[in-house]
Amino acid sequence: MNQYDQFKEIIKQAKAYEYAMTVVGWDSSTEAPKGAFARRAEMMGELRKQVLKLKTSSDYQHLVNYLLQHEDELSTEELREIKKAKKTLDKTIKIPQNEIIEYGKLIQLSQKDWEFAKANEDWDGFKGTLAKIIDYNRKFIDYYGFDMEPYDVLLDDYEEGMTMKDFDQFFNTLRVELVPFIKEVLANKKVDEKPYINAKYKASKQKEFCTYLMDVFAFNQDKGGMKTSVHPFTWNTHPSDVRFTTRYLENYVFSSIFAAIHELGHATYEQQIDEKYNDTLLSGGTSMGIHESQSRFYENIIGRSKSFWKTHLPKLKKVFPRQLKDVDVDSFYEAVNRAEASFIRVEADELTYPIHIMLRYEIEKMLFNKEIEVDDLPQIWNDKMEEYLGIRPKTYSEGVLQDVHWSAGLLGYFPTYALGSAYAAQLYYTMKKELNLDELISTNNIKEINNWLQEKVHKFGASKSPKQILKEVTNEDFNAMYYVRFLKEKYTELYLK
Amino acid sequence: MNQYDQFKEIIKQAKAYEYAMTVVGWDSSTEAPKGAFARRAEMMGELRKQVLKLKTSSDYQHLVNYLLQHEDELSTEELREIKKAKKTLDKTIKIPQNEIIEYGKLIQLSQKDWEFAKANEDWDGFKGTLAKIIDYNRKFIDYYGFDMEPYDVLLDDYEEGMTMKDFDQFFNTLRVELVPFIKEVLANKKVDEKPYINAKYKASKQKEFCTYLMDVFAFNQDKGGMKTSVHPFTWNTHPSDVRFTTRYLENYVFSSIFAAIHELGHATYEQQIDEKYNDTLLSGGTSMGIHESQSRFYENIIGRSKSFWKTHLPKLKKVFPRQLKDVDVDSFYEAVNRAEASFIRVEADELTYPIHIMLRYEIEKMLFNKEIEVDDLPQIWNDKMEEYLGIRPKTYSEGVLQDVHWSAGLLGYFPTYALGSAYAAQLYYTMKKELNLDELISTNNIKEINNWLQEKVHKFGASKSPKQILKEVTNEDFNAMYYVRFLKEKYTELYLK
Repeated sequence: MNQYDQFKEIIKQAKAYEYAMTVVGWDSSTEAPKGAFARRAEMMGELRKQVLKLKTSSDYQHLVNYLLQHEDELSTEELREIKKAKKTLDKTIKIPQNEIIEYGKLIQLSQKDWEFAKANEDWDGFKGTLAKIIDYNRKFIDYYGFDMEPYDVLLDDYEEGMTMKDFDQFFNTLRVELVPFIKEVLANKKVDEKPYINAKYKASKQKEFCTYLMDVFAFNQDKGGMKTSVHPFTWNTHPSDVRFTTRYLENYVFSSIFAAIHELGHATYEQQIDEKYNDTLLSGGTSMGIHESQSRFYENIIGRSKSFWKTHLPKLKKVFPRQLKDVDVDSFYEAVNRAEASFIRVEADELTYPIHIMLRYEIEKMLFNKEIEVDDLPQIWNDKMEEYLGIRPKTYSEGVLQDVHWSAGLLGYFPTYALGSAYAAQLYYTMKKELNLDELISTNNIKEINNWLQEKVHKFGASKSPKQILKEVTNEDFNAMYYVRFLKEKYTELYLK
Repeated sequence: MNQYDQFKEIIKQAKAYEYAMTVVGWDSSTEAPKGAFARRAEMMGELRKQVLKLKTSSDYQHLVNYLLQHEDELSTEELREIKKAKKTLDKTIKIPQNEIIEYGKLIQLSQKDWEFAKANEDWDGFKGTLAKIIDYNRKFIDYYGFDMEPYDVLLDDYEEGMTMKDFDQFFNTLRVELVPFIKEVLANKKVDEKPYINAKYKASKQKEFCTYLMDVFAFNQDKGGMKTSVHPFTWNTHPSDVRFTTRYLENYVFSSIFAAIHELGHATYEQQIDEKYNDTLLSGGTSMGIHESQSRFYENIIGRSKSFWKTHLPKLKKVFPRQLKDVDVDSFYEAVNRAEASFIRVEADELTYPIHIMLRYEIEKMLFNKEIEVDDLPQIWNDKMEEYLGIRPKTYSEGVLQDVHWSAGLLGYFPTYALGSAYAAQLYYTMKKELNLDELISTNNIKEINNWLQEKVHKFGASKSPKQILKEVTNEDFNAMYYVRFLKEKYTELYLK
C-alpha cells in the first residue's frame, strides 16, 4: 500500500466511527427518551476518544507530513484533502490535551449557564463564563501560531479563505446600501393586518403540506426523509441518506413551511454530492456559507417568490380551506415577505436579517481585536441595534443573550449566515441568464433548478473551496452588490411602489 | 490496573462500538431510507471488524485465560462474566476466519433465497441452501470440540444449560398432556362468529390505544418509547433506553394490541435490570427463554385475562365506538382467546402455539442427530402437523417454508418460544401465592406486578442463569406441568364447560 492508501485506510476507519456517532446524533435530536443521555454521553465519549486517537496517531501524522512533502505524487483533489487533514491535525495537536478537556467541560456547562441567564435576564451571572470562552479561544489561536489575525483564524474555520478584509467589504456594502434602504422600507410599512397569519393551523395538516413540499422540490425520498424536532436542521451521513426536520407551531404556519423549504435546500445539496467523495475528507458541503446559500436560495429566492405561491397557494388552501378562505396570491405574497424592525434574529425577515448578522460580526471582530471586552457587550449591542434598525432592546434576552452560539463556543460562525444569502443572490443572477426560473417554478420543474445547482455547485462536495466555486460559476469573485440588488428590486416592488 | 480492570477496559471499548451499532440498527429497522443501506453495510462492517479485533486480540485472550486461572481473585459475578467471555471467545477463534466469512455471505444470500422460495413455493430451489447452512453448523460444532451432543451446543446458545434431555422431557409432557386436550377443545369449538374481529380499525386510532397501554403497563416513557415497524420487536441499549415497536393492520386490531403488550413485557424486563451491569457482559436479559417468559406473561397471562378486558374494554370501546358497539366482556374475552388448528406459527393462538414449536424442535433434533436430512423435511413436517393438529399443509409456504429462522442460521432457537410460556406459567403460580393478580389488574396496579418481577427476575440481568432464576423464585426446577395446568384450566373453562 502506498502512503495515500494508508492514509485512506485510517480515514475510512475514523469515518465508520463518525458515521455511527452521526446516526446516534440523529436519534438524540429526534426521538431518544431523556433517560438515554447519561449513558449515551459515556459511550460517545469512548468513540470520540478512538477517533481522536486515530487522527493524532504517529502513523497518521507521519503519513500526512510525508504526503505534504510529496505533492507531486498526489492529484489536485488528494492534495486538497491532505491539506485539510494537516490543518485539522495542527489545530488538534497544538493545544495541550488538558486544555482541550477543560474547554470541553466549560462549553458543556456554559450552554446551561446561558439558558439560565436568558430565562432570568441574568447577564451578570453569565458574563464571566463568556469571558472564559473568549479567553480560551484567544489562547488557542495563539497556540496554533498561524500567520493570521486572530479573528481571521476563527472566520476561516467556518468559511475557508474568508478574512476580515473580505467581510469588512461585504458588511460595509450592506451598511452603506442596505441600512438607509431598510429605513425607507420600514417607514412605508403597510399596516394591512392579515389575521390569517396567526390563525390556528393543525400540526398534522401542516405536516401534510410539508410532505407535499418534498415532492415540489423533487426531494429524493428513497435517499432521505423528514421528521420533527425542536430546532429544524438537516442531517446526513452520505448522499444517499439525507434527512431534515421541521417543527409545527400551530399558531404560525409559516414556521414549518419555510423551515422545511430552507432545510430542503441544505438537504438537496447533500443529496447531490458525488458519492465518490464518501471515503474522503472532501465529502459533504464545502462551507457553511455555500451551504447556507443553498438553503436561502430555496427559502427566499424560490419559496418567497410570487411564482411559487401562484403555483402552490391553491394546494395550501385545499389543506386549510377555512383559515385561507378569500386569501389571494397578492395578499399571501405580501404576508410571507413582511419586513419589520425586530429584536430577535431567528424571527427576522429576509430584508432585516443581514443587519442582525452585521451587528454580531462587528462585535466579534472588536472582541478579538481586543478593542472591547465582554463587559462592554450589552451597551454596544443595544447602541448598534438602535443605529441600524432604530429599536433598542429593553432586556438582555432581547439583546445580547438571545443566541446560543457564543455559549457553545461558536465564534466567527455568524457571518456565514449573511454570506449565504449574498452568495445565493450572486448565483441567482447567473442562473437567470440560463434558466427561466419563474417558468420552471410555475410548471413544477424545480428539478431543473436542482440539476443546474448540482452541475455547478453540489456535485463537487468539498473538493473546491467556496471562493473557487463562486468564481467558476459566476465568472466573478464574491460581489455583495448582487445581494443588495436582489433585495432592493424585491422590496421596492413590495413596499415602495 | 489489575487484570480484571484491564479486561473491563476492553469490554467498555467494545460496548461503545456495539452501542453505536445498536442505535444504527434501530434506525435501520424503523426509519432509514432504502438508499442508506449499501454504505451503511460498509460502515457497520468496519465497526464489526474493530469489535472482532478487540475481542480476539491476544491481550484479551491472555486476560480471559489468566482470570479463569485465578478464580479466587474474582467475585461470583465476575467469574460468571469471564466464563461467558471464554465461551464466546472459544466459539470465535476456533472457526477458521475464511469459513466465518463464507458462512456470513451464505446467510446474507440465503434469506433472500428463502423469501423467493416462499413466495414461489420453490422448495427445490431452497433446499440446497438450507443443506449448506446445516452443514456449516454441523462443522462449526465440530470445531468447537465441546464435550456435548451437537444439537445441545445449539440449544445452549439460546438457553444456557438446557439440553435435549430437558427439552425432551418438556415436549414429551406437552405431547402427552396437551395434544389430546387440544383435540378435545377443537372438537368443541364454538361457531359463534364475531364479525368485529376483522372490522376496520384505523391505524391512528389503534396507535392511540397502544399508547394508552404503555400507561396501563406502567412503562417508563422517560426511558423508552414506541414506534412502528414491519415486524414488532424490542430494542435496547441499556435500561434507560428501551424501545419497542408494534404494527397496525387495519383489518385486525388484535395484532397491534397483543404485539404491543408482548413487546412491553420484553421492554419492561430490560428497563428493570440493574444499571450496574451496563459495562459488563452481564447486561441485558439472561436468556431467550426468560425473555420470552416476560413477554408471554404480559401478553397471555395478563393481556388475555378476563380481568384485563373487564378493566380496559371500556377504553377500547371509546376509541372504536362503532366497531365495538354491543360487544360485551364475555364475547371479547372469547375473541382474544379463540383456539383453532392453523398452519402458520406466528398466527397461532395461545393453546396450539407450543405444538408448532414442538414440531420444529423434533425436526431440528433429528437433523442434528443425523436421523434425517434436508430432503426429508417437507414430508416429516406435514406428517407431524397432521398427527398433532389434524391438518395437513397443502403448500410449502404453509409448511416447511413458513419461517425465516433456518435461512438466517437460527437453529436451536425455536424451543425457547415454547419454553417462555412454560416459564411464565411456573412464575405465575408462584406469584399468585403472594399477589392478587386479578385485583391488581382491575385496579390498574400492574406496577405492583412489575415490582415483583423486578425483584425476582429482572434486576439480575444476566448475572444468574435461567435455571438459577427459576429455582430461586419458584423453589423448584423447571416443571412443565404448570404450563399444562394453566392452559387446561383456562381452556376447559372457555371451551369445555
